Amino acid sequence: MKKLINSPEEVVREALEGIALAHPGHVRVSFDPFFIARKDAPVKGKVALVSGGGSGHEPMHGGFVGMGMLDAACPGHVFTSPTPDQMFEAGKAVSAGAGVLQIVKNYTGDVMNFDLAAEMLKEEGIDVESVLTDDDVAVKDSLYTAGRRGVGLTVLMEKILGAAAEKGMPLADLKKLGDQIRASGRSMGMALTACTVPHAGKPSFELAENEMEVGIGIHGEPGRHRMEVKSADEITAMLMEPVLTDIPFKSGEEIILFVNGMGGTPLIELYIVYRKAVEIAEKHGLKVSRCLVGSYITSLEMAGCSVTALRADSQILGLWDAPVNTPALRWGA
Amino acid sequence: MKKLINSPEEVVREALEGIALAHPGHVRVSFDPFFIARKDAPVKGKVALVSGGGSGHEPMHGGFVGMGMLDAACPGHVFTSPTPDQMFEAGKAVSAGAGVLQIVKNYTGDVMNFDLAAEMLKEEGIDVESVLTDDDVAVKDSLYTAGRRGVGLTVLMEKILGAAAEKGMPLADLKKLGDQIRASGRSMGMALTACTVPHAGKPSFELAENEMEVGIGIHGEPGRHRMEVKSADEITAMLMEPVLTDIPFKSGEEIILFVNGMGGTPLIELYIVYRKAVEIAEKHGLKVSRCLVGSYITSLEMAGCSVTALRADSQILGLWDAPVNTPALRWGA
Repeated sequence: MKKLINSPEEVVREALEGIALAHPGHVRVSFDPFFIARKDAPVKGKVALVSGGGSGHEPMHGGFVGMGMLDAACPGHVFTSPTPDQMFEAGKAVSAGAGVLQIVKNYTGDVMNFDLAAEMLKEEGIDVESVLTDDDVAVKDSLYTAGRRGVGLTVLMEKILGAAAEKGMPLADLKKLGDQIRASGRSMGMALTACTVPHAGKPSFELAENEMEVGIGIHGEPGRHRMEVKSADEITAMLMEPVLTDIPFKSGEEIILFVNGMGGTPLIELYIVYRKAVEIAEKHGLKVSRCLVGSYITSLEMAGCSVTALRADSQILGLWDAPVNTPALRWGA
Repeated sequence: MKKLINSPEEVVREALEGIALAHPGHVRVSFDPFFIARKDAPVKGKVALVSGGGSGHEPMHGGFVGMGMLDAACPGHVFTSPTPDQMFEAGKAVSAGAGVLQIVKNYTGDVMNFDLAAEMLKEEGIDVESVLTDDDVAVKDSLYTAGRRGVGLTVLMEKILGAAAEKGMPLADLKKLGDQIRASGRSMGMALTACTVPHAGKPSFELAENEMEVGIGIHGEPGRHRMEVKSADEITAMLMEPVLTDIPFKSGEEIILFVNGMGGTPLIELYIVYRKAVEIAEKHGLKVSRCLVGSYITSLEMAGCSVTALRADSQILGLWDAPVNTPALRWGA
């Protein structure tokens, strides 16, 4: 295992130290328990957005803390759910009296711990709602999941709900909008190589020199097919077709299209994929109104990509365009 | 070779197609010859900044085209210099009558071709100046270089000169400021793994399972030492000490500190490196006033990192903070 780390035990703490030093204008970091909070939280009158999950998916979630996105993010150990007390302390720290909205990726540990944290927060008199992401069309159940996995849609969900919360949308409406986004977005990913969890010290799975895994999860969970590597255009079609035909998206609709790198994929390759993804979306009669291309929800150094499509009405597009100022996503502010 | 590409011949063209589709608000793309231009160029009264180099280092340079940074970027084939006609056509397309400033990384092909392009532009009656980056302290000469290689400082140079040009600084002053930045910044990098150029189809060099290369170039050129992998803190010290003692930086000075990923390194690891780099800078009596942490000048999927330190007075810091709006760097605008 070759990694820029000092010891597997210290990866998350030391990375948090680096984040605290690098982004003092955006965030403050709690080390006991671990969470990253928006520097100016609690923000008076605003619903507080809290997310979190295992580390190893950076910049998600900590890189999305700041104006117009999350109020707090709770990092677990690599590929391990954070604990309920992290989520509880984070929620308490950023709650401003207008309630807390938890954004939860559908993994059994995350769901259970956010549920416990919500109960603890409610006992403190804080209103809590939760929105789930389960956008991965690849498989129905998975290693760590009952139902579909929450993947790329989470990034779009956090951006859009963050903008809505910033504009003063109340908790009940945010919950409704989150559920609408959940119903309107789908994703699928693939891997060319595996990744190595520091604690494990060896790759999570094995792929032969000419093999890829289509439908992979963000922890290297098995997908739909293991097969010989295809061209970028063929791979993009293998991801886009299931994504577009699941809800299904209907001709004439507008979408936000997100081509995401798994961590070890050069940006130049993501643009090649994006080009084909747009072509396929347009063949389905869809209008790609906005996009995001880059490595935003990663699996350590895994090479591969995922695509996410989200149906976007004028409200969603307006919230997407709204200013955001976080370490990893910044525009219009 | 496992890559998200269709064919080695089409990598650059197809990526440019993706960039054109993804960033219509920022750039327009010329396909004959290849260059990426700021959408609103030529910008009246402004000196036009043109850079370029081999592809495979994305987001540099194309991702830095836009308000407050570059007016045009010329991508060569992967790890291959762009041609003089690309640079000439790009310069002509974005020139607004106030002159063209070329930002050139010190590689023999780049230097020669930008020189030729400058001559061609001058024949058209356009004033041209060039600024070189040769910030890599690792080795004196290298595979493709007479003198030191131009690496991470290029990103900071493009941001700062871009801001100065945006504020209306004339060509001669930009040249002077560029030379000051060149004299005030140093870098060094390392690799845990090699990368594979699509045309070559196999890794540029070989590293054993427990080896790293310290002082590597951004094309996988040999560095100072090949040795057993060390801890992140030891590696950071091996990069920071030569960087800080070369000029040398003096106690009490302010710096901009840039920790860059080589492409295949997870962001979580870069923050671990950044944490130690700050500690070392502070031990040298330096004040880290600004920073950049992320993969901005890459070597395809190479795992590794580089550090860059730039001495920063109040002028440099003001220009660093100035608004920028490009696909890869965006703030305050």
